[in-house]
Amino acid sequence: MLNYPEIVEQLIDELRTLPGVGRRAAERMTLALLERDNDSLAMLGGIISAIPEKVWRCPECGAMAEKGELCEICSSPRRDKSLLCVVEGMPQLFSVEASGQYSGTYLVLGGHISPVDDRFESRLNIDGLQKKVSSGEVKEVILALSSDVEGRATAAYLAEMLANSGVLVSRPALGLPAGANLSFVNAATIGAALRGRTVENPE
Amino acid sequence: MLNYPEIVEQLIDELRTLPGVGRRAAERMTLALLERDNDSLAMLGGIISAIPEKVWRCPECGAMAEKGELCEICSSPRRDKSLLCVVEGMPQLFSVEASGQYSGTYLVLGGHISPVDDRFESRLNIDGLQKKVSSGEVKEVILALSSDVEGRATAAYLAEMLANSGVLVSRPALGLPAGANLSFVNAATIGAALRGRTVENPE
Repeated sequence: MLNYPEIVEQLIDELRTLPGVGRRAAERMTLALLERDNDSLAMLGGIISAIPEKVWRCPECGAMAEKGELCEICSSPRRDKSLLCVVEGMPQLFSVEASGQYSGTYLVLGGHISPVDDRFESRLNIDGLQKKVSSGEVKEVILALSSDVEGRATAAYLAEMLANSGVLVSRPALGLPAGANLSFVNAATIGAALRGRTVENPE
Repeated sequence: MLNYPEIVEQLIDELRTLPGVGRRAAERMTLALLERDNDSLAMLGGIISAIPEKVWRCPECGAMAEKGELCEICSSPRRDKSLLCVVEGMPQLFSVEASGQYSGTYLVLGGHISPVDDRFESRLNIDGLQKKVSSGEVKEVILALSSDVEGRATAAYLAEMLANSGVLVSRPALGLPAGANLSFVNAATIGAALRGRTVENPE
């Protein structure tokens, strides 16, 4: 089998570490990059190298923001500072925003607790959360963690940590996803949806 | 909707231009890159920027090669220099190599002729092909172009160009792809496969 030049092999290996990119996709992307002219490659390389100079974590909430500035949400006067939504990372923050149902602020944890992880407190933005909660401005913390094992472990840890903080701690409802045929919904979800059922004809 | 920092938006736009990468995939990849530390980003950015210094087109055949060197195939004494396989680009070269059925050399065109393209001769490696053919070493040129419209147009153009060159000009057989159920094969392919049928019991 033919060998790639060394730098090409390096680039394929790097691209493979990105989410959703396997060996074949990384090869396709690399071969496409090899067709580019020097300026185009210098620009893409420059953009990636420049990320640390241009982007940082918002010092208020941990979301990504232009370096030197608060993020768009923390700097907006229209966001409700008494509501704090804890999310694992930026993709989750974007998902909550896309719902159009949330006008509070966020705390981006930067990950979740996994069962084999005993140093998570240094890695996750727990300090930021405690600072927010002790500021007195926050009245309710919504633990919008994923409903998988790691997300539930993280939510349980944070719920315990905040139990006596004087702020309301809540979690999004578990239940049927919108548009789901009941026959395709797993038993745990149906159980949660039944336990959390809502009354349609309140007196 | 939330805006990304400017450089993040730029990176998403750049990644979207890669094959098989849509807006959502580009966003996922970008968010993953934002989690990386400075060293990791500098390395990836450096690799991409350094491609023009490290890789070039083989001066013999146009395939990618370590800068300053012939490609692995042109520099191999085991490859048959009398056979020349014309391919559109590196992905197609790798596909032919992967078949294990070819031991000649290549000429990488760097693209194909498209119907709206009147300046292809400056863009495609036509000069390289003519130099190879007039060197006297080549006995057969295999036009291994794709069997789509552009590939057929390119093959027709090259076949005419080489008609009186004194070398044999051939094309890969059209026919059923291996492992195909006849009911899923399109009519044009079945027609070509019938016209090109081979005799199972030669006298």
